[in-house]
Amino acid sequence: MINKLVDKIKKQNAPIVVGLDPMMKYIPQQVQKAAFDQFGETLEGAAEAIWQYNKEIIDHIYDIVPAVKPQIAMYEQFGIEGIKAFKKTVDYCHEKDMVVIGDVKRGDIGSTSEAYAVAHLGKVTVGNTKISAFDEDFATVNPYLGSDGINPFLKVCQEEKKGIFILVKTSNPSSGEFQDQLIDGRPLYERVGEKVAEWGAQCMGDDYSYVGAVVGATYPEMGKVLRKVMPKAYILVPGYGAQGGTGKDLVPFFNEDGLGAIVNSSRGIIAAYAKEEYAKFGAEHFGEAARQASLDMIADINGAIGR
Amino acid sequence: MINKLVDKIKKQNAPIVVGLDPMMKYIPQQVQKAAFDQFGETLEGAAEAIWQYNKEIIDHIYDIVPAVKPQIAMYEQFGIEGIKAFKKTVDYCHEKDMVVIGDVKRGDIGSTSEAYAVAHLGKVTVGNTKISAFDEDFATVNPYLGSDGINPFLKVCQEEKKGIFILVKTSNPSSGEFQDQLIDGRPLYERVGEKVAEWGAQCMGDDYSYVGAVVGATYPEMGKVLRKVMPKAYILVPGYGAQGGTGKDLVPFFNEDGLGAIVNSSRGIIAAYAKEEYAKFGAEHFGEAARQASLDMIADINGAIGR
Repeated sequence: MINKLVDKIKKQNAPIVVGLDPMMKYIPQQVQKAAFDQFGETLEGAAEAIWQYNKEIIDHIYDIVPAVKPQIAMYEQFGIEGIKAFKKTVDYCHEKDMVVIGDVKRGDIGSTSEAYAVAHLGKVTVGNTKISAFDEDFATVNPYLGSDGINPFLKVCQEEKKGIFILVKTSNPSSGEFQDQLIDGRPLYERVGEKVAEWGAQCMGDDYSYVGAVVGATYPEMGKVLRKVMPKAYILVPGYGAQGGTGKDLVPFFNEDGLGAIVNSSRGIIAAYAKEEYAKFGAEHFGEAARQASLDMIADINGAIGR
Repeated sequence: MINKLVDKIKKQNAPIVVGLDPMMKYIPQQVQKAAFDQFGETLEGAAEAIWQYNKEIIDHIYDIVPAVKPQIAMYEQFGIEGIKAFKKTVDYCHEKDMVVIGDVKRGDIGSTSEAYAVAHLGKVTVGNTKISAFDEDFATVNPYLGSDGINPFLKVCQEEKKGIFILVKTSNPSSGEFQDQLIDGRPLYERVGEKVAEWGAQCMGDDYSYVGAVVGATYPEMGKVLRKVMPKAYILVPGYGAQGGTGKDLVPFFNEDGLGAIVNSSRGIIAAYAKEEYAKFGAEHFGEAARQASLDMIADINGAIGR
């Protein structure tokens, strides 16, 4: 799956992923109204609004954007109905041949971690039958529990040719509270980065590993170091746009081949229609605004990395 | 909710929680067969088997065990149907007046962390309506992302009088890879423990905080230190029984009031029928075996802590 992701990034010349984090406040009124008219102000109504919103955005970007990253929390908060909308979104993106990175940040140990890996990337055994549950292509994983939490994911990745992105240095202001603490003079995130390289060596695609890392755009200096620590890991970079990262901040995350990083934007794309810059599209054309914002983001990043 | 948990622990004289981690291999054949006969070897069939298995166990322990801890990964792997069984289990435990600790180990930042908090402990806003999604009483949370990940949970806990248990030192063998690393001469888990105490001070119940911690039974020496670092935090202790922890290992996790810790056992209780010790019950009486194993666990722990 890392090969497919790299191929799509090359073909579309677009090292970006669109975060499908459909907060209700982003969803245009007409979409909410139509869903509530049909299902009432219920979890089912919210799920329908999310699904219609996502579908319109996907329809407008699938030919120019290689991957999407649905944030499962935004669906999980609407309970079982929300989870259904998550699954529908994953399936629809696959119909459109997009790579799906499930932003699930799961992490546990042993058989529990295996169950999460199976849930999101593998197939579960029921009697003598094997069945996919959510079937994303990649999942994000939390490393706090160590190798016991990661190894079950590696096993499923090897079987299914799927991948993970492990949290290394997150984009938020307080990420340093634990991640930056110095151990023998070097920060914890570097040690996690070293383990990512080690785990990744067991799961190599053609040029890059199935095991990638999450490093926030808001910390370009740390990105520079981590790029060297784990040269074969694709870096998923959140924090562009709304969280403050700019095109120029992204340069250190890429390798000299112009690859090695995929930059996420969520509300900057899916709620572009609400920004002054794209106001001309109007709320009813939020899909077109998302497309234009994607094109602008691709141009910004490609310009910065001289691609 | 921490007050309710403490009250129930006192009343039932049972500082234990039963982990409802229904792996298919634990579920007796007759339960699986009945479910598959009805729904086939499908996700629905698996979910039905899980639900019937859980129900039987709950019916046999609710009057002697204060709390359950369903591990959501074991449900999530069966997709939407699995999640339905999770929700049904949570609701049924509430009918039986048990405290439900959702072992979800979620963790993200800002609005995403808030969405997880809302999903599991709070109420989501749909139009002008507020609706509970999963409605557990406590959730487990991963601290790797720092305060930005925890604060949204604190907010929901304060509003809903619910609680969280933050991973501090996990029970698995490789937990030391990151958690034990020395920062200025002290391990990372201690620093996380200090933050737990700090976060917890904002969410006090009568004697204990709504903000607890997870510390593995397999590390009693570390438990002893952490007990002092966060005196007002309830400690959720996994790793008893199957993972190697014994009654005597648990002493350091308790305060002098005989409170402050709740010990989890999962397969040691729910799959007790498969152990030689409880084989006399037979697979058809797995609920009774679970009850006996619970009574034995309570006696073992109370004996060790001299309660």
